Amino acid sequence: MEKTKVGIVGMGTVGRGVARLLLNFGDRTARHAGRILWLERAVVRDLSKPRPDVDLPDNVLSADLDEILEDQGIVAVAQLIGGLEPARTIMLRLLESGKNVVTANKALLAEHGPELFDRARELGRSIAFEAAVAGGIPIVTNISQCLSANQINSIAGILNGTSNFILSEMEESGASYSDAVAKAQELGYAEADPSMDVDGSDAAQKLAILAHLAFGVRVPWREIPLRGISSVNPADLRYAEKLGYRIRLLAVAQAVTDGVELHVSPTLVPIGTPLAEVRGAYNAVRVHGDAVGSVFYHGLGAGQMPTASAVVADLIDTVVGRLPITFRTLKLWSDDYAVVSPKDPGMIPGRFYMRFDVDDRPGVLAQITAILGRYQISIAAVIQHPEETTEKELSATALTASETEDVGNGHKLIVPLVIMTHETTEKSTRDAVSEIARLDCVHGECTRMRVGN
Amino acid sequence: MEKTKVGIVGMGTVGRGVARLLLNFGDRTARHAGRILWLERAVVRDLSKPRPDVDLPDNVLSADLDEILEDQGIVAVAQLIGGLEPARTIMLRLLESGKNVVTANKALLAEHGPELFDRARELGRSIAFEAAVAGGIPIVTNISQCLSANQINSIAGILNGTSNFILSEMEESGASYSDAVAKAQELGYAEADPSMDVDGSDAAQKLAILAHLAFGVRVPWREIPLRGISSVNPADLRYAEKLGYRIRLLAVAQAVTDGVELHVSPTLVPIGTPLAEVRGAYNAVRVHGDAVGSVFYHGLGAGQMPTASAVVADLIDTVVGRLPITFRTLKLWSDDYAVVSPKDPGMIPGRFYMRFDVDDRPGVLAQITAILGRYQISIAAVIQHPEETTEKELSATALTASETEDVGNGHKLIVPLVIMTHETTEKSTRDAVSEIARLDCVHGECTRMRVGN
Repeated sequence: MEKTKVGIVGMGTVGRGVARLLLNFGDRTARHAGRILWLERAVVRDLSKPRPDVDLPDNVLSADLDEILEDQGIVAVAQLIGGLEPARTIMLRLLESGKNVVTANKALLAEHGPELFDRARELGRSIAFEAAVAGGIPIVTNISQCLSANQINSIAGILNGTSNFILSEMEESGASYSDAVAKAQELGYAEADPSMDVDGSDAAQKLAILAHLAFGVRVPWREIPLRGISSVNPADLRYAEKLGYRIRLLAVAQAVTDGVELHVSPTLVPIGTPLAEVRGAYNAVRVHGDAVGSVFYHGLGAGQMPTASAVVADLIDTVVGRLPITFRTLKLWSDDYAVVSPKDPGMIPGRFYMRFDVDDRPGVLAQITAILGRYQISIAAVIQHPEETTEKELSATALTASETEDVGNGHKLIVPLVIMTHETTEKSTRDAVSEIARLDCVHGECTRMRVGN
Repeated sequence: MEKTKVGIVGMGTVGRGVARLLLNFGDRTARHAGRILWLERAVVRDLSKPRPDVDLPDNVLSADLDEILEDQGIVAVAQLIGGLEPARTIMLRLLESGKNVVTANKALLAEHGPELFDRARELGRSIAFEAAVAGGIPIVTNISQCLSANQINSIAGILNGTSNFILSEMEESGASYSDAVAKAQELGYAEADPSMDVDGSDAAQKLAILAHLAFGVRVPWREIPLRGISSVNPADLRYAEKLGYRIRLLAVAQAVTDGVELHVSPTLVPIGTPLAEVRGAYNAVRVHGDAVGSVFYHGLGAGQMPTASAVVADLIDTVVGRLPITFRTLKLWSDDYAVVSPKDPGMIPGRFYMRFDVDDRPGVLAQITAILGRYQISIAAVIQHPEETTEKELSATALTASETEDVGNGHKLIVPLVIMTHETTEKSTRDAVSEIARLDCVHGECTRMRVGN
C-alpha cells in the first residue's frame, strides 16, 4: 500500500496522542485514506523529556525543524504547539517549505488567521483546524461542508469544557465557585490560571471561528461581549432549577437584520433540552439552518485523544485531497469576507433572570416591580425564599460586612428575590437593574442572566 | 462565476425541496462550491401534476429521462425516486451515461448497494447517500470522514422518526399505541401503512448502512434481529419513567469479540441522557469511538427541507470533487468488505425490564424470583402497583376474555408486576420469561425490553 509521509511539530499531550493513532492504528487510517499515513518525523524542543505514553520508533524524534522543512516527502504536518509565537513563525515556515498544515491552535487562528490563510493560498497549501474548536465534535467540517446548503440562522454552543465542568460541579454538589475551580484544577480540567476559560475569552475565540464559517463574516473576537462564570452563585443554580432551568456558559451567534449578534454569557437553558443536559467537561453546539432546522452536536471538547482524533481526521482529509478542495473553495479569512463588528445586543429580544438581595419587609416587591413596569418589563415568575436564607448563603453574595453583622444580630434580615421576566430587551433590563440597585432596600450586586431556549 | 449543470430525477416532496434550494439560494451553494450549481433539468413521470411549492423556470421540467442522460454538461444528478424499481434501473442508466448520482433511497442501497457501487466504480462515477440515513443529521459524512481516526466501538441510534413520534406521543399524552399511530398519520409523520417504520425494518436498513461505514463489514439487513414498537404499552412507558427511564426504539450496532452485534428494539434509556430526551419526529445517533469517546448527533430525521439539505450538500461535495475522493477511497460495498451475519445477541450482557400480569395474591413474587434465580438473574428493582390497576389498563394488555370477566366480577384481581434486572444476558431472560409465562399465576403476554445506557 502507498505510504504518505507526515510530520508532527510539538509532542505535548495532543502531539503524543496523534503519534499514537498514526503509529498504532495504521490500519484504520489506511482504510479511510487508501494509503498509510507514515509518521516520518516528530520535532520537539527538548529531546530528553520523558514521553512514556508513546512508543516512538528510532529516528522519528528530532529537535531540528529543518528535518521536516527539508524533507520534500513530508506533505502534511500537524503543528501542535500552543501560543502565538513561535507557533506563527513555524506555521509560516512550514507553509513556505511546501507543507500542508493541520493545527489545534484556536488562539493563533483568532489572532493571525488572515495572514496565515493568505500566505497558504499564495503558496497553494492548506490549513486545517477541526481540532481548534470543540475538540471531539467535528463542528468545523459540519458547518462548512455538511450544512453547506443552509443559511445558518444561529449557533449556540457550550464551547469551554472547563467552565461547564465548574458549573456542573456547583450544580451537582452545591460547591462554591472557588471550590469547583479547585476541583477542576485537581482533575486536570483547569489550568493553574484558568482565567481565559472562565471569563469567556476562550469561548469567544471559538465562537468567532464558527461565526466566520457559518455567516461568512470576520468578527474580531475581542469585540464579542462576554461575561464569565465567576459571578454565578450556587443559589442561582438552585433558583434556576426551581424555575425549570440549568445555567450554562453559552456562546451565541445569530443572524439579525443587517448583521450578526454575538455574545458569551451564563444563560438559563430549559431543563430537558439538549443543551441543559450537557455535563462535566463536555462541549455541545446547536446549529439552526433554514433548511435543516436544528442540528445538535455533543462530545468531549478537549483531552488528548478526542483532540488527536480531530487532528488525524484532518491529516487524512489533507493527504487524500478533500481538505485542499475545501480550503480553496471557501477562501477562509480572505478579503471575500467582510470584517464586521458584533451588533449591539441591547435591542435583541429575550427573557432575563434577575436576583436581588433585598430587605425582608413589605413594600419591597412593589418598589422593584414599579421600576420594571416603567421599563415595560413584565414578570413571568417571582421566587422569594426567606426560609432558605442562611448566613452561609448570604455570605456567598456580595453583602458588606456591616450588613452581614446586622443579620447576625437579627436586626435586619436580607433575603434573595428572584425574578424571571417575559420577553424584553437586554438594554431595558440593564437600565432597570441599575435603577433598582440604587434602592435603599436592595443590597450588594444584582445578578442578571439571559434565558435561552 | 463558473456554472456546473445538475439534474433531478423525481420531483416528489424531496425533489421539490432540492429544486427550491438550487433555484432560490444559489448564493449559498456558490459560496460553498465556488461555482453555481445550475438546475438544468428535472425529470418527472407526470408533467401535469401541480407543484405549487416550487417555481420552475421554463424548460427545466421534462418527462424524458434522455434529456438528462444525453446532456453531457450535466455532471451530477439527484435521483429522488423511492422503491427498488425503476429506481435501480434509472440509477444504472445515469451512471452509464457518465453522471455522478446523489440519492436518498436507503432501501435501494440496502438491497442493491453492491451492484450499484461496483458499477459506479467500473465507470469512474460516484454515488452519494447522506440523505438516506437520518435526513438532517450528516451522520454518513461524520462516520466516514470526521471520525475516520477512530475504531468505532458502538452506534446507538433513533433512526425512525415515525416510531419516535408515536412513542413520544404515548409518553406525553398517555395515548394508546393505535391512537398515537392515528395522530402520526394525521400529521403526516406516518404513511397509511406504517409497518416498515413501526416494525423496525426501516431502522434496520439504516443501521446496516451505518454499520457498513463504521465497522467495515457488510451486514444483510434482514438478518438483524428486530422488534418493533407495537407491543409497547402506555403502562410500560409509565413504569419506565418511575424507574428513571424512557422507552425509545433504538438501533444498536456494537463491535464484539469476533464480529458485530446488531439489533433494533424498544429500549429503556436513562432519563437525562441525550438519547432519552429525543422527542417527536427527531432522530439521533450516538457514536462511540476509541479516540474521540462519545459523540452525539440530534436532528430532524426526515421532512422535505432537512432531506433536501443533505441532498444539496452531497451535490456540492460531488461537483467540487470531495465526494468522488471519498467514494474511491472507501470502496463501499466492494469485496474489500466481508459479508458477515450479526452475532447472536443472546450472550451480550445487559439489563432487562420485564412486565408480567399476575394474580394479586401472596407467593407470586416468590415463584417468579425463584425462576429468575435459577437463571442467575438478579433483580435491581420491583414495582407492584395494584392501586393503579384499572380495567382500561388491563384491557390494553393481552388478557383473555374470560380473565377480564373475572376482574369485572371482582373474583380475581390481576395486577402488573414490573421487574428490572441487574446485568444478565438476553438468552437468560428469554428462557426465564418463557418459563415464567407458563406459571398459573401469570396471564397473557410477558413484556421484556432491553435497558440501555
